Amino acid sequence: MSVLYDNLATRDGVVTLPEGLALDCGQHIAPLDIACRTYGTLSPAKDNAILVCHALTGDQYLAEPHPLTGKPGWWSRMVGPGLPIDTDRFFVICSNVLGGCMGSTGPCSISPKGERWGTEFPPITIRDMVRAQALLLDHFGIERLFAAIGGSMGGMLVLEWVATYPERVFAAMAVATAPYHSAQNIAFNEVSRQAIYADPDWHGGRYWAHDVVPARGLAVARMMAHITYLSEEALTRKFGRRVRRDPKAAAGSTAGGVIGTASLFGEMFEVESYLRHQGSSFVNRFDANSYLTITRALDYFDLSADHDGDLAAPFVGVKTRFCVVSFSSDWLFPTSQSRAMARALNRAGVNVSFVEIESDRGHDSFLLDEPDFDRTMRGFVNGAAEHAGLRRGGRG
Amino acid sequence: MSVLYDNLATRDGVVTLPEGLALDCGQHIAPLDIACRTYGTLSPAKDNAILVCHALTGDQYLAEPHPLTGKPGWWSRMVGPGLPIDTDRFFVICSNVLGGCMGSTGPCSISPKGERWGTEFPPITIRDMVRAQALLLDHFGIERLFAAIGGSMGGMLVLEWVATYPERVFAAMAVATAPYHSAQNIAFNEVSRQAIYADPDWHGGRYWAHDVVPARGLAVARMMAHITYLSEEALTRKFGRRVRRDPKAAAGSTAGGVIGTASLFGEMFEVESYLRHQGSSFVNRFDANSYLTITRALDYFDLSADHDGDLAAPFVGVKTRFCVVSFSSDWLFPTSQSRAMARALNRAGVNVSFVEIESDRGHDSFLLDEPDFDRTMRGFVNGAAEHAGLRRGGRG
Repeated sequence: MSVLYDNLATRDGVVTLPEGLALDCGQHIAPLDIACRTYGTLSPAKDNAILVCHALTGDQYLAEPHPLTGKPGWWSRMVGPGLPIDTDRFFVICSNVLGGCMGSTGPCSISPKGERWGTEFPPITIRDMVRAQALLLDHFGIERLFAAIGGSMGGMLVLEWVATYPERVFAAMAVATAPYHSAQNIAFNEVSRQAIYADPDWHGGRYWAHDVVPARGLAVARMMAHITYLSEEALTRKFGRRVRRDPKAAAGSTAGGVIGTASLFGEMFEVESYLRHQGSSFVNRFDANSYLTITRALDYFDLSADHDGDLAAPFVGVKTRFCVVSFSSDWLFPTSQSRAMARALNRAGVNVSFVEIESDRGHDSFLLDEPDFDRTMRGFVNGAAEHAGLRRGGRG
Repeated sequence: MSVLYDNLATRDGVVTLPEGLALDCGQHIAPLDIACRTYGTLSPAKDNAILVCHALTGDQYLAEPHPLTGKPGWWSRMVGPGLPIDTDRFFVICSNVLGGCMGSTGPCSISPKGERWGTEFPPITIRDMVRAQALLLDHFGIERLFAAIGGSMGGMLVLEWVATYPERVFAAMAVATAPYHSAQNIAFNEVSRQAIYADPDWHGGRYWAHDVVPARGLAVARMMAHITYLSEEALTRKFGRRVRRDPKAAAGSTAGGVIGTASLFGEMFEVESYLRHQGSSFVNRFDANSYLTITRALDYFDLSADHDGDLAAPFVGVKTRFCVVSFSSDWLFPTSQSRAMARALNRAGVNVSFVEIESDRGHDSFLLDEPDFDRTMRGFVNGAAEHAGLRRGGRG
């Protein structure tokens, strides 16, 4: 944790902005809490800040162990001293998105009525999330980001950052993302939501008042989403059709939200065991109402919506240097969508490079050890830093 | 409905075989009911029978309106007088699979204990389903099928038919299928099952004793499966990102198992509305325990399991004429799996043709109006009939 961060944050890594935020839906939410973590040191000129935007179920624990799971930060292999996003050189900020459940204002927060917002939390958009981050930067006195970087939903935030505040982002990298949520993406999200609603512990979204969580529904949502994050090749290589004894061969036993049942011949497939574990562990760290709120924001994301479907329009005249990255086996955010984004940026006259990384590990590739991606990241960040005239290896 | 069928079936289109069936799991189930429908007329030589095998959620209502939904039979466009599977020439049989819920013995049937089997229904395999069909043919006095034809799970039954009873099938067409269920297929099925278990009306599988059905869980399972039946292109073309007013904008209202909730700005995406309808209507015609039983059978299907992974081994010396058909945009049963099957048949020395149909409508293409597929079907069936020396246009 950086020294600077301790100076700026008020309590437990949460910045409270009393003036709050006006949302796209017309409501005003105040105060606004933003939970964030920073790494590295902000230069005196405040010109070396990189905002890293997390994905749907990510959070601000970017490069340090997660306080709930104890696991390494979600991009520990990418962000740190000497790593592609080098904290010896850059000041890296990662904040929990508006609507999240790791300290930023969201459905778990207390509403003006004095109880949790729950399902009454206002509908939010990706742009609302970006505006909240902009207020955080204002609070830090950072006028302009050296770079905004993110994958999946984080990539949408990056795109929206440049569309909304083009003067505030010198360089932008959008990874494994798309300029809008496709019908298939929306469909999967809708099934996730229905799985949560189907849980008896859902209680119309007021589960917190009943001292329960809709663990089974949320686990089902996570299991399904997890399949979409992996390629068929990755699943086959990891699990194939291997079976193991079913430890819960007796029907009906519950463990962390997922029910085991009598399986054929007392066996279960390893991929089933893996998915059940993914589902069970997720419910211990994520809030169902946050999941609903954020998936809605994802579904409504469409950069061209205010421009008659013209994806180039939001970027005309933009000076930000762009890098768009996709992974060949990502079927949730396929290369075709990244390419369409890169072409639109080209049409808008923006300086953009487009890289498709060969990988057979699906959407999750952006979180995994992919040396080609690391090289692309390092090259883009250092190239942009040179262009910006940033001191090499400078700690401000 | 054919005359012959009326003569053979005992009540309501159900054939009851008192001796029952010995299952792969070691249990013996008796009596065995098989619900079936037939079209056309069996020739005196009983050499013009085509068995059509239905998919996971299909049934015996192949070419006539469904008694519960009133919709046309699932292959009405393919089976009938003058159609590619020509009932003026062939006697077409379609039976509800063992484990199903449209009249064949399955979890809804009454067990020897005097109540519904429910989750105590024995685990079954695709081979068990095929053995049950073979008993039905014995009952009809049909020694050898002119052809076995099926798509998706139906295609697995076709493959298993030839592997188990090579002498009883002259020609076989396996469409949009695979010789084993992949890790991704298993993963999706497992999420379906967990969705059913998560429903408060599941009651450990004894929902029938509580006079309810786990409608919400089953609807979620169906919604998710439905996404996998369509291609991304098909979803985009059908729905894109179009929105409509949400008729259930008030949170928590229930309709046919699916809950509407307050959506962003009171709108919902058309793809959401479509999926909810798919989920709701499914629960009115399908039993949850059947869904669990049949998906298990699918997951355990692996033709090479008894042959050290050698897919050719079960087919060495087989005289059956094969046609393997895939659809280019089918990502649930991709062309690669059909091609592997065709190559294995080739290695085994089997007469096999392999056709990939260009279509952007995904797995469901085999149920849709695809003229290239119709031509392939007509050509294969007529070619095989000529080879078999069947009378042209013969009604026996």
